[in-house]
Amino acid sequence: MTPEEFRRHGHATVDWVADYLASLEERPVQASVAPGDVRRQLPEHPPEQPEPFEEVLADLDRIVPGITSWQSPGWFAYFPANVSGPSILGELVSAGLGVQGMLWSTSPAATELETHVLDWLAELLGLPATFRSDSSGGGVIQDSASSAVLVALVAARERVSDSNRTGVTTTHTVYQSSQTHSSVEKAVRIAGIGSDNLRTVAVDERYAMDPAALDAAIAADQAAGHTPTMVVATVGTTSTTALDPLEDIAEVCARRGVWLHVDAAMAGVAAICPELRWIQRGVEGADSYATNPHKWLGVNFDCSAFWVADRAALVDALSVTPAYLRNPASESGQVWDYRDWQIPLGRRFRALKLWFVLRCYGAEALRERIREHVRLAAELAGWIDEHPDFELAAPVPLSLVTFRHVGGDEATAQVLEAVNASGRACITSTQLDGRLTLRVSIGSLRTERRHVVALWDLLRTAADDLAGRRAGASPAG
Amino acid sequence: MTPEEFRRHGHATVDWVADYLASLEERPVQASVAPGDVRRQLPEHPPEQPEPFEEVLADLDRIVPGITSWQSPGWFAYFPANVSGPSILGELVSAGLGVQGMLWSTSPAATELETHVLDWLAELLGLPATFRSDSSGGGVIQDSASSAVLVALVAARERVSDSNRTGVTTTHTVYQSSQTHSSVEKAVRIAGIGSDNLRTVAVDERYAMDPAALDAAIAADQAAGHTPTMVVATVGTTSTTALDPLEDIAEVCARRGVWLHVDAAMAGVAAICPELRWIQRGVEGADSYATNPHKWLGVNFDCSAFWVADRAALVDALSVTPAYLRNPASESGQVWDYRDWQIPLGRRFRALKLWFVLRCYGAEALRERIREHVRLAAELAGWIDEHPDFELAAPVPLSLVTFRHVGGDEATAQVLEAVNASGRACITSTQLDGRLTLRVSIGSLRTERRHVVALWDLLRTAADDLAGRRAGASPAG
Repeated sequence: MTPEEFRRHGHATVDWVADYLASLEERPVQASVAPGDVRRQLPEHPPEQPEPFEEVLADLDRIVPGITSWQSPGWFAYFPANVSGPSILGELVSAGLGVQGMLWSTSPAATELETHVLDWLAELLGLPATFRSDSSGGGVIQDSASSAVLVALVAARERVSDSNRTGVTTTHTVYQSSQTHSSVEKAVRIAGIGSDNLRTVAVDERYAMDPAALDAAIAADQAAGHTPTMVVATVGTTSTTALDPLEDIAEVCARRGVWLHVDAAMAGVAAICPELRWIQRGVEGADSYATNPHKWLGVNFDCSAFWVADRAALVDALSVTPAYLRNPASESGQVWDYRDWQIPLGRRFRALKLWFVLRCYGAEALRERIREHVRLAAELAGWIDEHPDFELAAPVPLSLVTFRHVGGDEATAQVLEAVNASGRACITSTQLDGRLTLRVSIGSLRTERRHVVALWDLLRTAADDLAGRRAGASPAG
Repeated sequence: MTPEEFRRHGHATVDWVADYLASLEERPVQASVAPGDVRRQLPEHPPEQPEPFEEVLADLDRIVPGITSWQSPGWFAYFPANVSGPSILGELVSAGLGVQGMLWSTSPAATELETHVLDWLAELLGLPATFRSDSSGGGVIQDSASSAVLVALVAARERVSDSNRTGVTTTHTVYQSSQTHSSVEKAVRIAGIGSDNLRTVAVDERYAMDPAALDAAIAADQAAGHTPTMVVATVGTTSTTALDPLEDIAEVCARRGVWLHVDAAMAGVAAICPELRWIQRGVEGADSYATNPHKWLGVNFDCSAFWVADRAALVDALSVTPAYLRNPASESGQVWDYRDWQIPLGRRFRALKLWFVLRCYGAEALRERIREHVRLAAELAGWIDEHPDFELAAPVPLSLVTFRHVGGDEATAQVLEAVNASGRACITSTQLDGRLTLRVSIGSLRTERRHVVALWDLLRTAADDLAGRRAGASPAG
C-alpha cells in the first residue's frame, strides 16, 4: 500500500468509523449472537491473493453485529471505556509512526512526551510531588491496572527480599479487602506469592477497608514470622466505588514498613475536579498509584497511568540489560528507559493519545464531563431510592449506582434481563453480601440525561411487569 | 468532537500520516536530540481550555525530529517493526470501535475473529494441529513475546506445583542458552523463581543450544531434588538468528517431563514460506510457541501470536473469576474468555489489524517479501565475506547479518558510529564471544536492494576511512 493508497483507504476508513460513531444511538447495545455465529461467517482458510481494501472494509459491517457497543450512550455496564475522537486519532498517529519506545534511545520523543504528559496528569489530579519526574518518582503508561499492580508487587517484593535472584523463599503476605479487584489475586499468583498469602481484610458498612483490621492482620503476620509485603487500597472499588480510607491505611503501612499500592483504576480520574479530590485524601503516603484514563477520561484502551514515589525501586526490580540493548544514552544515567518500568520489552507511543485528549478538550471540559456524570448518578440514585420496589445497595460517591429489587435475587435477575434484552441499555451485576446487585455505571462520553431517563423507564417498567402493574409515565421525563 | 468533526480531523490526520510515510526516505533515520530536548519544547502545564485540533496536529511536526524512524528504508537496527497501511487502518478501526474483548460476552466478535485469524496464521506457518482451536490448544494475541513467555512460565510452574495457591515453595529450574532473549530472565524473576535457578546451557559453534548439555543440566537438577519446569528454545536468537534444534530439545523435554516453550519472536514468521519451514522442525513437541507478526509480517506493535497445545493448563493457571465478571456464556463452557490467557484483564480488538494484513496482501505477497529480505541478506553477507576488512560473525540463515571489523572492537565501534551518523541507515550491535559485533537486520517493508547497496557503501567507506584508503566505486552498484 503506497502512501497515496493509504491516503485514499485511510479516508474511507475514517468515514467508516465516523459513520459507526454517528450510528451508535440506533444500534443495539449488546451483541445478540450465539457462540460460533461470527466464526461461521468467516472463510475457513486465509487468502493466497490480495483482496481489495474496499471488500475488507465492507466486511466490517458483517463483524459489527457481533460486537457489543461499549461506546453507546446506553452503555451503563462494567465501567466507562470512552474513546473520544482526539484519542482515536492519537492512536492513529502512534500506529502510523510505528516507533518503539522501549529505550529512550530507540525514540527519544516517545519517552519524553510520556514522562511530560504524566507530569501534567499528576498535576491535574493533585497527586503528590513525589510522583513527579523532577523528584524521586515518576509516571509511566501501562496497558492496564492489572499490569500496574503486578509490577508494583514485584518492586514491593524486591524491597523486602532478594527473590529476583533467589526465587521466593519466604512467606510474603499481601493485603486487600473483600472488595479489591481480582487483578490483585492474579498478581499475587503470578509473582509466586500464592493466594494463600493474600489476606482479605474486613470492610465497614460502606464497603471500605477497615484500617484497624488491616493493622491487626499485618501484626499477626509479623508475629508469625511472615513478611508483610504490600497493601492494596482502592479508590473506587469495582462493585460499588467504595473508597478505602487512604490516610489511615497509609499510616498503618508507614508504621509497619509495608508498600502501599493504590488502585484507583475506575474512579481516580475524578480527582481532576478539585471538589472531588477528597476521594484520594492520604495518597501522599502511597508508594505507587494507578488510574485509568482509558476508562473515564476519554482515552481509548490501553492507557493506565501508573506512578511510583521511588522509581529506583521499580527499575531495579524490572531491569535486565543484555548486550544488544546497551547504548550510550542509557549508560549515561540521564534518560529513562521505560522497558524497565513494565513487563514487556516493546512499547507503543501511547502518550500521543493522552496528549491529544488533554489538549483538544482542555482540563475544564474534562472536569465538566465528570461532574455531569456524578450529577446524573445522584439523580438516578434518588429515583431508585424513592421507588418502592428498589433499594440502593451502597452509597453513591461518584457515578456508579448499585441497587436491587426488594423482591430478592430472582426479581433482580429479571430486571437485569429485561433491561439488557431491550437493546437500548446495558447494565451488569455483582454480588454484595451474598445478594445479586445491579450496577449502573454512568460515564459514557455520549450519555446524556435523556439516556439515563430512558434507562430509568426500562427499570421501572421491568418492576411494573414483575408486579403485574401497568407502566406509568416517567416522573423524570 | 462530533462524528462530523471526527471525519474532518480524521482525514487531516490520515493525510499527515501519509505525508510522513512518503517522506521517510528523506528523513534521518535516527533522532539526533539530546536528553531533555523534546521536553523543553513542551508547555509546562496542561491547558485549561481546548486547543484547535489543527494546532495539535501541527505540533507533531515538532515531535517528529525527536523520534527515530523505525519505518525508514534505512532501518537495519534491532528487528523489523513493520507498520503496513492495512495494519495502521486495522488499528484505527479497533480504536474507533473501542470494544473490550476481556470476555467473549463483552464483545463476541473480538474473541471469535482473534481465534479464527490465529488458526489462519497457524495454518500459514505449518504449526502443529494441537495448536488449533479445534483441538486441545489454541492461539491468542499477546502484547509481546515477553508477556508470552511469562504466561507460559506461570502455566508450566502450575503444571508441576501448586504455587498459585501456596506461593513458590520449591526450586523451579528453567533452561535457556547464552543466546536466549533477556525476557526469559525477566519472566523467571517476576514469577518468583529467581535468576539463580535459570540455567544457561552451552551453545554450539552456530550459537544453537546443545541438547546433550540441556539433558545433562536437567538430569543434574532432578538429581539435586529440584523441579525442572520449563525449557525455552529459540527459533532465531536476537544476536544472530541462531536456530535451536527443536527436535532434539523436544525429545529431551518429553523424556524428562519439562514444558517446552519456543520463542520465535523475530524469525518465526519466516515459516510462512514452505522452503523456510525447516527452521521450526520439531515444533510439534512444543507446549507453547510465540512469534511476532509485529516484527516481520507488516503488523504494527502490539501483535505477538502465542499458541499453546493445552489451553486448559494456561487458563487454569491464569483464571480468577469475581462476581462482577460472571456471565452465562462463560459458565456454559462454550466460549473462550481471553482475559484468562493473559496478564491484563482488558484487551483491545487486536485481531483486526492482523486480519486486515492477511487479507489485503494475501499469503503469497507476504511470502515474497520475506524471500526478498532473505535474498538481500545473503547478498550483503557475500559482500562482507569477500571484503578483507570485515568478517562474518555467525551463519546467516535468514535476514540478519552479523559481522565485525577484523581490526577489533575499536574499529568495529567506529564503523557503527560512522554508519549511524550518516542519518541514512541505522544498525545496532551485540556481543558475541566477548567481541563487539554489528547486526544488520534486513526486514523493513520499504527496504529495497538499493538501500542495502547504500548501506554497503557506508560500511565500505567507513572501512576505507579507517584504513586511510580512498573510497572506490561500489562493486554492488
